[in-house]
Amino acid sequence: MKTYINPQRSDWKALCTRPAVNKQDLNALIKDIFFAVETRGDQALMEYCKMFEAAVPQQFALPADTIAALAEEVSEGLQDAIIQARDNIWKFHEQQAQPVTKVTVQNGVECWQKQVPIESVGLYIPGGSAPLFSTVLMLAIPAKIAGVSKINLFTPPNAEGRIHPAIAFAAQLIGVDAIYTLGGAQAIAAATLGTDQIPQCDKIFGPGNQYVTAAKMYAQQLGVAIDMPAGPSEVLVWADDAANPQFVAADLLSQAEHGADSQCVLLAQSEAFVGKVNAAIAEQLAQLPRKDIATQALENSVAVVLDNAESVEFCNTYAPEHLIIQTENAEQLIDHIVNAGSVFVGAFSPESAGDYASGTNHTLPTAGFARAYSGVNLASFCKQITFQQLSKEGLNALATSVITMAESEGLQAHANAVKIRLENGN
Amino acid sequence: MKTYINPQRSDWKALCTRPAVNKQDLNALIKDIFFAVETRGDQALMEYCKMFEAAVPQQFALPADTIAALAEEVSEGLQDAIIQARDNIWKFHEQQAQPVTKVTVQNGVECWQKQVPIESVGLYIPGGSAPLFSTVLMLAIPAKIAGVSKINLFTPPNAEGRIHPAIAFAAQLIGVDAIYTLGGAQAIAAATLGTDQIPQCDKIFGPGNQYVTAAKMYAQQLGVAIDMPAGPSEVLVWADDAANPQFVAADLLSQAEHGADSQCVLLAQSEAFVGKVNAAIAEQLAQLPRKDIATQALENSVAVVLDNAESVEFCNTYAPEHLIIQTENAEQLIDHIVNAGSVFVGAFSPESAGDYASGTNHTLPTAGFARAYSGVNLASFCKQITFQQLSKEGLNALATSVITMAESEGLQAHANAVKIRLENGN
Repeated sequence: MKTYINPQRSDWKALCTRPAVNKQDLNALIKDIFFAVETRGDQALMEYCKMFEAAVPQQFALPADTIAALAEEVSEGLQDAIIQARDNIWKFHEQQAQPVTKVTVQNGVECWQKQVPIESVGLYIPGGSAPLFSTVLMLAIPAKIAGVSKINLFTPPNAEGRIHPAIAFAAQLIGVDAIYTLGGAQAIAAATLGTDQIPQCDKIFGPGNQYVTAAKMYAQQLGVAIDMPAGPSEVLVWADDAANPQFVAADLLSQAEHGADSQCVLLAQSEAFVGKVNAAIAEQLAQLPRKDIATQALENSVAVVLDNAESVEFCNTYAPEHLIIQTENAEQLIDHIVNAGSVFVGAFSPESAGDYASGTNHTLPTAGFARAYSGVNLASFCKQITFQQLSKEGLNALATSVITMAESEGLQAHANAVKIRLENGN
Repeated sequence: MKTYINPQRSDWKALCTRPAVNKQDLNALIKDIFFAVETRGDQALMEYCKMFEAAVPQQFALPADTIAALAEEVSEGLQDAIIQARDNIWKFHEQQAQPVTKVTVQNGVECWQKQVPIESVGLYIPGGSAPLFSTVLMLAIPAKIAGVSKINLFTPPNAEGRIHPAIAFAAQLIGVDAIYTLGGAQAIAAATLGTDQIPQCDKIFGPGNQYVTAAKMYAQQLGVAIDMPAGPSEVLVWADDAANPQFVAADLLSQAEHGADSQCVLLAQSEAFVGKVNAAIAEQLAQLPRKDIATQALENSVAVVLDNAESVEFCNTYAPEHLIIQTENAEQLIDHIVNAGSVFVGAFSPESAGDYASGTNHTLPTAGFARAYSGVNLASFCKQITFQQLSKEGLNALATSVITMAESEGLQAHANAVKIRLENGN
């Protein structure tokens, strides 16, 4: 990790800029895939499967008995682990339901806002090197609590044309409505447009490779909502000299092993502490099965030494996906955090707790998107619909205001809709 | 209005498809504008102003005394109207604040979610034929309640190079931080990228023409959030035979006068009632200053006759921006509405009440986007950040679950971050 000691404010922007991702312009390819799926439906999907996947499933929709059989392959130990995680994630997310509050704005003017589930969602779960069954929990649980009526899961086939058993187990446990063995940009196109075999979805969630990400951005242009824009995963660990360097090293490495493009930032109070963390990283790294990936990720990573007063501002400027605070006064500092996806407070709150089982969601805004985006939560699966009901007296009380404003905006028919009611109404 | 009597289900999709907007592919132009603003900053902004606007302001940022002087030009009657609207919109939106609830997920595992304001937002207010000062209220009030620290308003210069006095009055009343006399795609590019004179914004809100809309979609690809995708405004009025045809006609016309591309849908129980509404439209239309615009909009509009049981489903399939229900049992029906932006219940709740002064927001999802998007509300100006704090005992209680899941996903360093704490921690 390159170390920066008390960097000038003017250098922060560069320090907080994420490493440039080697982003090909995939737009032309993505447009082709959407056009093919729109015009040729399932036939096009099958062709893309043959082109891009190691194996082709017989049909996209997994029958219930196949799902059940796959789920039974999962060891009891992993089943128990997933069930405990499910319980905690469920408990945390169900607290997020927003009650309807009727507001009597004036006499006879009642307004309220109601949280209503989105009807049909698509959850994308990558296959590949790490079968992310934990992401099934993170997406399907809030969808289920929200009351989404069609939860559709998409995941690519593995080399045997199957899906990972733990993905099937988690999906069955939560009550996902359908699992489609379909991945890549073609899965996103199918969920956006609908085909004979694949239902159109109103909103698409989940991580994916660059093709999936580009397809989600394109889907958004066609009016389908997505959870958030995506970038490589990242952590900022803010530690003072009293922190345990082994813990800090372990947290940085658990981010680094995600992918070569992951970014880790250490924010420390002294160069000496950075040295201790580097020593601990070297020691722990040697034991890791994914040490090559982690080593590459660490090359993108930086250590920054700043005093405490500036550290809060640096965190907010960086706007990390994950922020781990291992300082003696962590509980006071968190009041000042305004840009972060998820914050882990104190020495015994590693990111892995939140990644799996503490209850919070792990689908979070990366790349500085935490400045404007939230992680996935119950509200991500809902819309807010407003309602209003006025009595004749209520409308009368607003009439002068509405008519004056409408006429000033040059909208006479808007004014008439009020006038005509007060003149003719009973 | 073309009338459809008991259309088959198979025809609903076509009936619910919005009229094709003559959408030019503006991507190349928008990319050019963003590139120019990125590389040449304010100079490029000034050039685009000269190219596209009737007059060029001396500087983009309006000085406070200019804003105050403009605000004084607003008549007392309009000032009072705006103040009443402000009071109601404020009252309704401040009820939407979400308290922090700490959840003890297990002993020693505390998780919570905190609503935190976005730091810097851009509010776009169109100039043009109707100076939408009401939209200043709808965007700036929730921003202010949320606690956004930099509320930047963008609006194009009129023929005298000035902005509309009522826009200045509303902005000053709410306490907008800066007003920039800058419109079009170049304003969106400046808010996305930042220049010497224009601050970079984390999220951009507000309606606009096709250039502004295309620029917002492009900004989103660069990681800046936007309120929602935009389309022409629309209303669905659902009325039974007991409704007053004059009221229904007035509501349809108040939508139709917005623009030639507005769409109005009448959902009725009988052809006879449609006839009465058509007669009332003809009568009222003759009096309207914007009758040419309204007439064009009515050409895009349809009347659909369905029985009550199917009507709810038709409403949800159409997913209207504005839904007005003038039926005897309106209060029961609204429980079944799942796709709509804002719902107006009963004979004395015209859309114009919500457009201006009842308290609900008028920035709403069009074009069927209500299936997945909410209208602007307090949450639109906030992020949800999650926090967690675990004790050693809390982490211990999760350890088996986290370690088992991490190892099953092939992420050993994630497991280590837990193990190392339990082995070494005090």
